[in-house]
Amino acid sequence: MKRQPAARPSTSQEVAPGSNGALRHLCEKSHPAAAAEALSALEPKAVWEVLRDIDPVLRTEIFSHLEPNLQVDMVGTLPRADMARLLSDMPPDDRADLFRRLPEESRDAVLPALAEAEREDIRRLTNYEDGTAGAVMTSDYATLSPDLTVAAAIERLREVAPDKETIYYSYVVDNDRRLLGFVSLKDLILARRDATVRDIMHEDVISAKTSDDQEDAAHIIQKYDLIALPIVNDDGALVGIITHDDAIDIITQEHTEDMRRFMAITGSTGTDGYLRTSVWKHVQHRVGWLVGLGALGLVSGIIIHEFEATLTQVIILALYMPMVADTGGNTGSQSATVVVRALALREISPRDVWRVLLKELQVSVFLAAVLGILAWAKIMWLSQGVEIPPGFSLGNIALVISLALSMQVVTATLIGALLPLTAARLKLDPAVVASPALTTIVDITGLLIYFFTARWLLGV
Amino acid sequence: MKRQPAARPSTSQEVAPGSNGALRHLCEKSHPAAAAEALSALEPKAVWEVLRDIDPVLRTEIFSHLEPNLQVDMVGTLPRADMARLLSDMPPDDRADLFRRLPEESRDAVLPALAEAEREDIRRLTNYEDGTAGAVMTSDYATLSPDLTVAAAIERLREVAPDKETIYYSYVVDNDRRLLGFVSLKDLILARRDATVRDIMHEDVISAKTSDDQEDAAHIIQKYDLIALPIVNDDGALVGIITHDDAIDIITQEHTEDMRRFMAITGSTGTDGYLRTSVWKHVQHRVGWLVGLGALGLVSGIIIHEFEATLTQVIILALYMPMVADTGGNTGSQSATVVVRALALREISPRDVWRVLLKELQVSVFLAAVLGILAWAKIMWLSQGVEIPPGFSLGNIALVISLALSMQVVTATLIGALLPLTAARLKLDPAVVASPALTTIVDITGLLIYFFTARWLLGV
Repeated sequence: MKRQPAARPSTSQEVAPGSNGALRHLCEKSHPAAAAEALSALEPKAVWEVLRDIDPVLRTEIFSHLEPNLQVDMVGTLPRADMARLLSDMPPDDRADLFRRLPEESRDAVLPALAEAEREDIRRLTNYEDGTAGAVMTSDYATLSPDLTVAAAIERLREVAPDKETIYYSYVVDNDRRLLGFVSLKDLILARRDATVRDIMHEDVISAKTSDDQEDAAHIIQKYDLIALPIVNDDGALVGIITHDDAIDIITQEHTEDMRRFMAITGSTGTDGYLRTSVWKHVQHRVGWLVGLGALGLVSGIIIHEFEATLTQVIILALYMPMVADTGGNTGSQSATVVVRALALREISPRDVWRVLLKELQVSVFLAAVLGILAWAKIMWLSQGVEIPPGFSLGNIALVISLALSMQVVTATLIGALLPLTAARLKLDPAVVASPALTTIVDITGLLIYFFTARWLLGV
Repeated sequence: MKRQPAARPSTSQEVAPGSNGALRHLCEKSHPAAAAEALSALEPKAVWEVLRDIDPVLRTEIFSHLEPNLQVDMVGTLPRADMARLLSDMPPDDRADLFRRLPEESRDAVLPALAEAEREDIRRLTNYEDGTAGAVMTSDYATLSPDLTVAAAIERLREVAPDKETIYYSYVVDNDRRLLGFVSLKDLILARRDATVRDIMHEDVISAKTSDDQEDAAHIIQKYDLIALPIVNDDGALVGIITHDDAIDIITQEHTEDMRRFMAITGSTGTDGYLRTSVWKHVQHRVGWLVGLGALGLVSGIIIHEFEATLTQVIILALYMPMVADTGGNTGSQSATVVVRALALREISPRDVWRVLLKELQVSVFLAAVLGILAWAKIMWLSQGVEIPPGFSLGNIALVISLALSMQVVTATLIGALLPLTAARLKLDPAVVASPALTTIVDITGLLIYFFTARWLLGV
């Protein structure tokens, strides 16, 4: 979380290099997020030249808003004393994040220059596994003892406020830092000044554990409309908080990952963004699934090879092969999408598998009827000039193709719903069954349905 | 925004009907969001029987957390007086939302039973167009006059706190309600008690307009880590705020829409969720694109028809047709996904079209090389037994197919990147060029590339 939410977004995003005075002025006038955005256009060294001479509090905020990669590059160019000063001013969660990204030699250089308490804090926060609540929490929160009076509690918050990310929620802890409850600043403002914190605190405090998934923590913040969520360790002791703004960032990041995974892209651009990610990284993220799907796609080739005789006998079947395959892919992707999204929004759980399949079956029967009838009409209309082998009629063939299409729509829809539900049941990410993979799989079922229907009904 | 963030999530989600006493107890013990979740299992009438007798403040909060459809159904079963009491207790933004959903007759029944000020408030809030900042803002915010002392300001916030969604930010307005600045409660707590609000307020306040897109407002809250964003009308007068928890909900809803749209699903399940949405609605949301894509897919059929002679001459071409088509669809969908997501995250803008195309061109050349070589190897290995017409060699044919595949990868990747960028440039949602549509389009380019390459290089 960054403090000081003031100031207007800067309108000038492009910055002429060299004009450090003007840039410094811009940094002092703009919101730190806007200043950071403007500075991103510069080289790491030039950014430091602008930041070096401005007020340390503001400097740290602007720095915390820079893209992580730029932060790492900048730190690499700094003398050790400057590096240490910058790190020691940062909010603990952002500092731990940066520290995780620093190359070994920078870490070794900067650690001895920091105060013991800061070293300890970094060590503690970087210890949690990536993606857990512990790894994203901050240690800048306000605690109160239950026996303080409201007046004394407010006084204490006044003292610590400049150093804390939020004083709007304070956590009430005992001597072992075990979480007893929480009070909001609003509660304190409204309460009688001689009441104790214990009198007014909410005892049923919602919390998460350091080992919980960061996404689950973010969803709790979303569900209960919290400003901050306290994080406790295995002993129930308070060790950090996750704030509302971090929750938005976690949820956004989760969306990006879901969408990429669902479209068969591995890895993540992290916070680097599309343009800063190298061509080679982009290739790495995409090539894996493509190669895998290409191999799986060979199965389609083998099936067509098996039915070569059927195809050469009734060549009209080849013309509508792509239509059946594509429609299956489309309907399967649609049902997979709604199921993946419903799972992500916690609208359904893996236990709802039968209810979901029943619903999708009903939906797919409607779709199959509509698409089957349209396919029949299209074939009758478009294929009048196509050569029909003796013994068959266009009407028969059209019926067979549209019947196969309808069966394929139902099959693909059910597979599309079943795969993400199965993944969720196996505790995998539902989006792991990427839509292109699904398309390739239902291509195979589609071809089998197509050719077996033709063989069975037309006898070819 | 719902007030009172206390209490532990309820663990019992299934509720036995009939046990109203137990249910009431559960409602009083749980967080309102958890209580609402538990009650959702009941019929609308039964929900009211539980809620009727509990404390009005808590009742309103639980009610505000219920799914919108259940709210509407419940209101329909209530006598007018109960309906009016419930509505008048609700936070203004939630009340306006509910009112928008009520059928005409319920609106007409309830309006006369409300106080004049509430009627006016509803009329004002429901006037804003759906999807704008005006339509999601709340009118429960605290304002301060600039000439108040800090002590008087805190006193005033104490008085109004119980009725306001947040008192952590207060907005400083002049006599025409024009926004002069804002102060946080933290600022007030830290300031000298005899300073004036004008002395300590932040003048560069970030705001949005009522007519702004709700998603833009949410992104401002995310970018600047705000607890609330003030919303002004065309005259610059403060008319509402959007709070951090609404921003999370807007961003989540936006992502669901993006993902659905991108996978060729129209409409939205709104807040009803997957299971509550009827089969018929699901069909409606999916059938449109399917029919459209089916029609577009006929173009593939026509192309294959045109090249029937080529196919029957070199039947091996038919075997690898699906591989070329699928790979094109997959690579195109991947590039479309990263571009759509980068646009949504504001990492790139439509003006970056050349930089994006250059990057995708580089990526696609790598991918084309890898996939082309693999395709060549697969054909050489798998198709040794396939009949080759006289005058051709398997080596030649494999070379032609893998060359066509490579060209298709480059073309599909560029089309996948270009379409969403073009949509964004035309001020359309980039996700409007759904991935299935893209797949169908690049199927067509793929077949053309495939057959023209074969005709040109093999002379068939």
